[in-house]
Amino acid sequence: MSILEKLRVKPLEWIEDKLDGPVFRWLDTRQLPWEEVYRETRDYRRVAQAIKTMEIRGAPAIGVAAAYGLALAAYYSEARSVDELLARLEEAYKVLASTRPTAYNLFWALNRVMSKAREAAKHKGVDGIVREVIEEAKKIHIEDVEANIKLGKIGAKLIEDGDTILTHCNAGALATAGYGTAEGVMRAAIEEGKRIKVIATETRPLLQGARLTVWELVKEGIEVRLITDNMVGYVMYKGLVDKVIVGADRITVDGYVANKIGTYTIAVLAYRHRIPFYVAAPTSTFDLSLEGDSIPIEEREADEVRTILGKLLITVPDVPVYNPAFDITPPELVTAIITERGIVTPPYTQSIRKLFKD
Amino acid sequence: MSILEKLRVKPLEWIEDKLDGPVFRWLDTRQLPWEEVYRETRDYRRVAQAIKTMEIRGAPAIGVAAAYGLALAAYYSEARSVDELLARLEEAYKVLASTRPTAYNLFWALNRVMSKAREAAKHKGVDGIVREVIEEAKKIHIEDVEANIKLGKIGAKLIEDGDTILTHCNAGALATAGYGTAEGVMRAAIEEGKRIKVIATETRPLLQGARLTVWELVKEGIEVRLITDNMVGYVMYKGLVDKVIVGADRITVDGYVANKIGTYTIAVLAYRHRIPFYVAAPTSTFDLSLEGDSIPIEEREADEVRTILGKLLITVPDVPVYNPAFDITPPELVTAIITERGIVTPPYTQSIRKLFKD
Repeated sequence: MSILEKLRVKPLEWIEDKLDGPVFRWLDTRQLPWEEVYRETRDYRRVAQAIKTMEIRGAPAIGVAAAYGLALAAYYSEARSVDELLARLEEAYKVLASTRPTAYNLFWALNRVMSKAREAAKHKGVDGIVREVIEEAKKIHIEDVEANIKLGKIGAKLIEDGDTILTHCNAGALATAGYGTAEGVMRAAIEEGKRIKVIATETRPLLQGARLTVWELVKEGIEVRLITDNMVGYVMYKGLVDKVIVGADRITVDGYVANKIGTYTIAVLAYRHRIPFYVAAPTSTFDLSLEGDSIPIEEREADEVRTILGKLLITVPDVPVYNPAFDITPPELVTAIITERGIVTPPYTQSIRKLFKD
Repeated sequence: MSILEKLRVKPLEWIEDKLDGPVFRWLDTRQLPWEEVYRETRDYRRVAQAIKTMEIRGAPAIGVAAAYGLALAAYYSEARSVDELLARLEEAYKVLASTRPTAYNLFWALNRVMSKAREAAKHKGVDGIVREVIEEAKKIHIEDVEANIKLGKIGAKLIEDGDTILTHCNAGALATAGYGTAEGVMRAAIEEGKRIKVIATETRPLLQGARLTVWELVKEGIEVRLITDNMVGYVMYKGLVDKVIVGADRITVDGYVANKIGTYTIAVLAYRHRIPFYVAAPTSTFDLSLEGDSIPIEEREADEVRTILGKLLITVPDVPVYNPAFDITPPELVTAIITERGIVTPPYTQSIRKLFKD
């Protein structure tokens, strides 16, 4: 049984035993927790749309999905020459890369598959390149799960029996290829026999905490309590939180962390209350080309704020809003970053470079 | 024209020219911004229900409504003796006082009307006491508007031309007898010719910021932008906020401020970003009998968090939640408190006592 078959939740799947050729299948996280809807396609443009509209969300999951997008583009390109195939892949790359600007794993995965294709083009024909592209996408998928599991085990050392862990948004099975980063650490701690409780923030505007994290944790029998985003200060003030663990969408070489909007607020509060603030992310989230708070922040459409998931208008129509999808937490607020290669701590300018040299 | 007739929004009204006796009328703020629904009653129990279910909300508004509740109880008591009338008023007092535990103005207003009734009972008959009770409720109403206007003028001195002010929940016309405390300061600044912009937090769970503050400010042509509660850190980090002004539900003798859940989080963030954090509240909000963070905090029903206003379930049914309606901001995070008698600053142990001695 492969590592992918062992996953309890399969948010992303590449299915090959189909008559008309392989399909990419995903759990539409926008329908959770109301319905468990799986969608599938053979068209990379549909994958791009699923990323853009956040049917697939969470930096690692976006990376894996984008890689499979290129795999679909390759398989169904109908290219008759290597050059034509590479041109089709370039087109698909552009469409997939323009979906969301912040999550680094997207670019990391796309670039990795493209490098593989270009490398293969030096000595293989169309079919050979297509096979290599598909294999690389599958490898990225499996490696993501393996990295999560490793990262979880490493991070679990930081968790003590009886801890209450606050998390934001969803950095669980539904944000990755299936195990989770922040939630991966929780899962590993539980597998080690530690008893933990979780406080999940609802995470407006798109409510990933209320919809996804709670759904995922309840499904696995992990004790969870839901709060609104503005209750973080209160639960910390009351001494109800031992640790914070969140995921990340991009981390710079000097330890600035882009993650779901609201993360910075939680980090400031954790700092004031002397609560450890941990970021859990695979090394594919690190952008070694950027430093400081220079990470591009996606601004999404205003109706995400004016409504609840497009279902209920909660304010005056057309009122101006801010809707940054992410914020940046500076390194001085981050106690440690947990990766599959080990835990890094301040000063990050040194520890992160060391992580990538080893 | 009385001061009450001049108000643009009349959230609370005592109407006497009715054939079958006076009625108390209020704007049901739960229906905003979708519908402007006014309700009326002659039954004080209905007033209690309106306070409990937050058709009427905001500490000063709750105080005024409760006073009118006693006025209804007095007028419609059918008491044949002074003792019977006082007993009926005691009953009504208990019902009205048990609606919400945190807002101090509720107890302040109820006690003020009851003192008046007991005083009147020494030398007046049933009709005389009823008249006194009604007059006292009206006085509390008018004084609240006057205090707001005074407080607004005093607070406006702290506002500079061009300021962007962040506010939380609704401390406006819909939280008071009609002018507002935090929003009163904004209105007064604008009346002085200062140009201001407002950033309003949506204020989950009941979304008073998105529903009420935005509705009120848009109606008056004041420039406002809506954010989710977890964007406060981001907008401060980006330098988009010059000042914070919020209302209060209860303030202790040493300057601890109970206000809508989320206020403490905003105060911590303002402190980190060196942004002045102002509380605007009439002196009827001060509870001189309490100190430290001993203010009772109301815990409301779980479905307020699990749903959006009972209209949309956003998580797994029955997941446990925390739902404190308020939090407490310690005095070291409060730059100043604006009242109708002047502005108090730290050390509050001295300045607040002085405010009540003058």
